[in-house]
Parts: sequence; C-alpha cells; structure tokens
Amino acid sequence: MSATPSVVSAAPADPVDILRTLIRCPSVTPAEGGALAYLDAVLSNAGFATHRVTLTGPDTPDVENLYARFGTRGPNLCFAGHTDVVPPGDAAHWRFPPFEGAIHEGVIYGRGAVDMKGGVAAFIAAGLDFAGAHGHDPDHAELPGSISFLLTGDEEGPAINGTEKLLRWLADRDERIDHCVLGEPTSRATLGDMVKIGRRGSLSGTLTVHGRQGHVGYPHLAENPIPGMVKLLAALKAEPLDGGNAHFQASNLEIVSVDVGNPAFNVIPAEARARFNIRFNDLWTPDTLAAEIERRLRAAAGNEVRFTLAFEARSSDSFLTAPGEFVDLVVEAIAAATGRRPELSTTGGTSDARFIKDHCPVVEFGLVGTSMHAVDESTPVGEVAALTRVYAGVIARYFALFGR
Amino acid sequence: MSATPSVVSAAPADPVDILRTLIRCPSVTPAEGGALAYLDAVLSNAGFATHRVTLTGPDTPDVENLYARFGTRGPNLCFAGHTDVVPPGDAAHWRFPPFEGAIHEGVIYGRGAVDMKGGVAAFIAAGLDFAGAHGHDPDHAELPGSISFLLTGDEEGPAINGTEKLLRWLADRDERIDHCVLGEPTSRATLGDMVKIGRRGSLSGTLTVHGRQGHVGYPHLAENPIPGMVKLLAALKAEPLDGGNAHFQASNLEIVSVDVGNPAFNVIPAEARARFNIRFNDLWTPDTLAAEIERRLRAAAGNEVRFTLAFEARSSDSFLTAPGEFVDLVVEAIAAATGRRPELSTTGGTSDARFIKDHCPVVEFGLVGTSMHAVDESTPVGEVAALTRVYAGVIARYFALFGR
Ligand SMILES: [Zn+2]
Ligand SMILES: [Zn+2]
Repeated sequence: MSATPSVVSAAPADPVDILRTLIRCPSVTPAEGGALAYLDAVLSNAGFATHRVTLTGPDTPDVENLYARFGTRGPNLCFAGHTDVVPPGDAAHWRFPPFEGAIHEGVIYGRGAVDMKGGVAAFIAAGLDFAGAHGHDPDHAELPGSISFLLTGDEEGPAINGTEKLLRWLADRDERIDHCVLGEPTSRATLGDMVKIGRRGSLSGTLTVHGRQGHVGYPHLAENPIPGMVKLLAALKAEPLDGGNAHFQASNLEIVSVDVGNPAFNVIPAEARARFNIRFNDLWTPDTLAAEIERRLRAAAGNEVRFTLAFEARSSDSFLTAPGEFVDLVVEAIAAATGRRPELSTTGGTSDARFIKDHCPVVEFGLVGTSMHAVDESTPVGEVAALTRVYAGVIARYFALFGR
Repeated sequence: MSATPSVVSAAPADPVDILRTLIRCPSVTPAEGGALAYLDAVLSNAGFATHRVTLTGPDTPDVENLYARFGTRGPNLCFAGHTDVVPPGDAAHWRFPPFEGAIHEGVIYGRGAVDMKGGVAAFIAAGLDFAGAHGHDPDHAELPGSISFLLTGDEEGPAINGTEKLLRWLADRDERIDHCVLGEPTSRATLGDMVKIGRRGSLSGTLTVHGRQGHVGYPHLAENPIPGMVKLLAALKAEPLDGGNAHFQASNLEIVSVDVGNPAFNVIPAEARARFNIRFNDLWTPDTLAAEIERRLRAAAGNEVRFTLAFEARSSDSFLTAPGEFVDLVVEAIAAATGRRPELSTTGGTSDARFIKDHCPVVEFGLVGTSMHAVDESTPVGEVAALTRVYAGVIARYFALFGR
C-alpha cells in the first residue's frame, strides 16, 4: 500500500487523520510500508527540510529512516519515534482489520495505534501547527529555534539500522539536537499518569557448566554438570543486586532459559547451558555488573564447578535525565493538557532513548500502552488529541524557557 | 551375511571358532544377522531341542530369539545371553573390520567380542562338550539334569521383544528353569575379578515447573519457573537417598536433563522441565522411591512452586541373589579356572537379569567389559578359553550339588 500525502492547510492539523493514514501503511519491521514517504511529503509541504536515510549493515535488512527539521538555528527540540510496528498475528482475531484504522465508539483500532503511530501522529500534528504559525517559513525571523523529527523504521526489529546509526549520521553532519522527547506509550492507565525520565540498562549472558559425559550406572566415571549449574544459578539469585535508589527500582536478574538437550534417561550429559538477562539501574555499568556476576559465579563454583561465562555484545547502559528545567516543562505541559501530574518513572523495558541519551537529555511521554503488541491495539480518539496538546505545550514551554 | 553351521565332532568344541563365526554375523539390534540361525544349527546337531521364537509388540521391531535345551528332566541350569550388538560406528576408525573377527597377537577383534558374543561362544562351547560327553543323547540315562540356552536378539535395543517375553513364553509352556548364569561382561580388569549377584533398580521421571510467561522488563507481571526448578532440583540432591547396605552401594539420583527452550533473552518462559534417573538398591521399590521423591519435592515447593511429576512406565526393580550354595559354586568355578576369587558385586547398569530374577536365582559372570560398545572391541583369545573352563566348571559343580 502506498499513501497519499494530505493537503496541508492553515487549519490545525488533524492528528487522528494522520494516525489513520499511518495505520493504513503496513509498516511491519523492516518494511517502510509508505509511512515515511507519507510523512516526508507532509513535512516537506509544511516547509521542513527532510532527509530520507537508508541505513544498512551486515546480517540485517536495510532500513529507511527520516529526519526532518523546521528552522535553521538552535536550540533544536527533537521529537523521536518509530513508524515500524510488530506483526498483527492472525488478522481474523481482530475486531477490525489491523491496517484499516477503523473508528468505533470514539476509539481508533489498528496495529501501531499506541506503539507508536499515535504518538508520531500527535507530535507531527503539533509540529505542523508550529510551522503553520510561522507561515511554513523555516527562516521566519521570529522563530525561537528549531523543531525536528527523528523517525526510524527499525525499533521493533534488531534496532541496528535505526535510531543509533541515524544519530551518528546527524553527528557526522554537525547536526545538533539539544533536547529530545520520545513519543513511546508511557502512560499506564490514563493519559498523563506516567512519564519516563530514564530507563534501566540491559545485560544478557550465557553460562555454560562443563562436565564429562557418562552412563548413569557409573556416575563416578562421569561428571554431571547439572548439580553444578543448579548451585551457580542459586548463587546468582541468592542476593539482590541492589536495593534501587531515588529514581530507580532495584536491578533484577531473570534466568530466561536452561538447556541440556539430553534425550536419554541413562546418559549423564557433558554440558549444561543457562541464559540470563539483567535489567539494571544507574548503580551499575555493564562492565561493573559483568564483573559482579563473574565474582558470584566464581565464589559459588570454587574448585568444583567448571564454567564459562559469555556476555552478549549488545548490552545497553541505563540512563537518567535528572529532574530539572527540561523534565519540569514536560511535566507542566502534561498537567496543563491532561490535568494529571505524571509519576517520574524509570521502569519497564528498553527504548531508543538508550541511544538518544548519548546525544542530549531525553524524556519519554506518550499514550496508554496497555494494548501495545496485542490484538485489537487501540486508543481513544480523544487521547490522541490530548497528546497533541501536550506536545504543543512542550514546544511552547521549551521555547519560552530555552528559545532565542 | 548368513552363517554356515560348524561340523560337530567328538573333539572339544572350539569357543574361539564359534566367537569368530558369531562376530561375522552383523547382528546389530534388531537384526538377527545369521547368529541365531548358526547357533540353532550347531545345537540341533548336538542333540539340543531348539525353539526359534519371534516376539512382537506394538511400536517395536519384531525380534528373533532362541531357546535350546539338552536333557528333559530337572534341574535345568540355564545360560542366558544376547547375540545382538550395538552399531560399530564408523568402521574406518577400527583397527580391523568390526564384523571380521580378526585375530592379532592373541587378541580377537570385533563388535560383540566382549558384549557378549564372547560369553555366548564360551557357554555354547561348554554346553556342546557336556552334550558330547553324553553321546549327544538328551535322554541319556546318566544325565544329572538339563542344561539350556536362552538367547535373545533384543538386549541392546528396547529389550521389549527379548528375554522378558521369552521367559513368559517358556512359563506358558511349563518350561521350568531352576538356576541361571547370564554371560554379560562382568569382569573389571582381569577375568575373574568380579561376579554380579544383583543389580540396582532403575526409575526415571520428569519434573515440570509451571510459571507464567512475560517480559523481563516487567517480572512482577510474570512468574519465572526457573528459580522454582533450581530450588526443587537442589532439594532432590540435598540428602542422599540412603547409605547402601552389605550388598549394595548407595542409591543414586542423576538429573540427566533440564530444558526450557526459550530462544529470547527478553522473555520470561512459562515452563521448565527436568528429567532424572535413579539407580536404587533393595532398600526401595519403585513405588516407595517415587513416593519419597514426591515428598521431597512437595516439601521444597511449599505453596510457592507449582510442579507436576511423572514417572516412566518401564521402571525396573532391584534384585539380589543372596550368597549361598549357588553363588558359592559359581565362585568356586571361577577360582578354579582363573585363580581369582571374584568380588560379589551389585554395581553398574541394568541387564536382562532384571527379568530372569522373577523366575529363578541368577548370577552374572563374563569377560572383561572395558572395550564394550567402543571402537576396537576385543578380548584375548586365552580369556575366551578360560571363560569356557569357568562355565564347564559351573556345569560340573552344579550337577554335583543339585543333580539327580
Ligand atoms: Zn515502540
Ligand atoms: Zn550385553
């Protein structure tokens, strides 16, 4: 499906119209599905300088991305997000087709409605209104700075040819971003109840315990690796990693798999493998945490258990955008548009903010995420409109505070 | 390959000749390979009444078996064994072809040389000499009883259409066996150093711990089954099952596999499975042992860990042929032929003696087992001859003690 650009007018942009057009683009990672082409056209028409960037790498599909900026001087307030979506599963299980954007009793249905075409539609609408207010002229003398959009098609996939490389592409061109709002669905039960000012880091590893294969009838001639594995796994979980702190919950280790793969009842296996993932707070870095895991395993293993430990290359550090002027203005914009003062949270999974935080302060705010990745993903039309007011309020407050 | 019967003469039977002929029959389970046909012919010629019995069952290959008896009256001393062998693996790794029976520097090489065509050849040779001594006439007035051979082609395989069913076939015909010698390779380092007077039982089970799938970023919404599994497995191994007794070593539980099969690092799995096998002594029955395992798991699980436990249908009980007249005469025969007094052992894996013990007292004695199931399986020619003298000594002493 390919999308047709909307006509840009002086009237306020309609985020619901933009959202329905985006939902109709079947942009399941890594397919672009027409979503970025549509936004490129809309933003170009509104005076944005746009850049379509196809990013590539070995062993991963090529991915299209989009960077668009209105204004040429700083400060540059950037809204980041993704137009790719997870697969819909069996479309027959949906109440309405997943790529149709049906509206029923004030609710819009479709894959990506909340994660995160809804957030994208809201900040694009707010950005179009900002551009409209300046006559679609990015060199307008009254412009207090710039706003920009950083949009990737690879957030739900490997996230290799997406935000991380696009930010490097920008840095290589001396394109500076000063502050960023990521539009992921952060609200928990009602729009405005939670904003994310940080995220825990993630570290994954594989533990292998080595033994010697043999026959169960002659255990003294073999060395069963499983009791050693049980001992090491118990040691990994015996003590909490930390107690958390003012901004973060406690770090948490989950053993996600244990595998031996021995089909026989009369054979003692040679090896056992376990895989684990740790979501950790800012009391750790991936390096200090890896050292702590190795220390615990060595202490439990003593001279008895032979093991090897390997960490996955793609760990991500935690980050925190400490409460202050930028966080406050986002909170005020949320409160003004929704009547709620959001909880400042650092919980949940990782997001592309883990890449953005290396370039500028970043805060995440968006729709209620309950239905994300599920059948009948949907959001009330009214919340998309309210989210647009939040983002418009962020833009206004940002330039009031930081603008030229 | 099909075998040609040897010519039976008044000269002593040559066990090495019989062994080489058996090795040349490629009787990898469940193939008969000509081995039983050859023995049938040899024994028929010597006056034995022979019965070829093809045993069948659902989901298992049909298997040929052989029962042969010399003499019509009791007591009936039976020699039991198998002519099937495990696969040779890559024949190129063997010093001599695995189905050739090459003799090099006094050692005979070939698959089955020790497990257990060597034992079969030795007791067949001893039996042929016994028959020859009575003019090949099973009704000879001077016969002190009967000797018989119980030979299966399904010991290395599922062992379903072999010894167990053949014994039932005999019982259905009111064919009585009074004592049995099983010719498995029981010697450890030198011929005569160990005789098996019992075996431990075997019980296998599968433990499943149930949780609830979820995302590692939101562990409170999921329930990881792996820590519960670690706890239950630790409890299974925490205390020895027993300390053994005069005839048996301690019972031993081995966890042979743990499997989750979760390919993702960011997903908490729904379920974990572990499989275990217990080799147990005569302080337990499969039922009392299963109850003890369940008790340990329930105690460790409390109300926190949800698990299910399933035991395999084919458990085997332990058995012991208590030291006494029969064991003593076998020990004396070994000592007379080898100069060694064997250790009375109950160690190691299971054997078809687990079926025979339900019908009559059974003792196991045979060659040195070191090379069994391995590349270059082999036995010194001299030990095959010595084993034949042991079995001849058993026959002589048996009828001296129990004969008519
Ligand atoms: Zn998302
Ligand atoms: Zn065997």
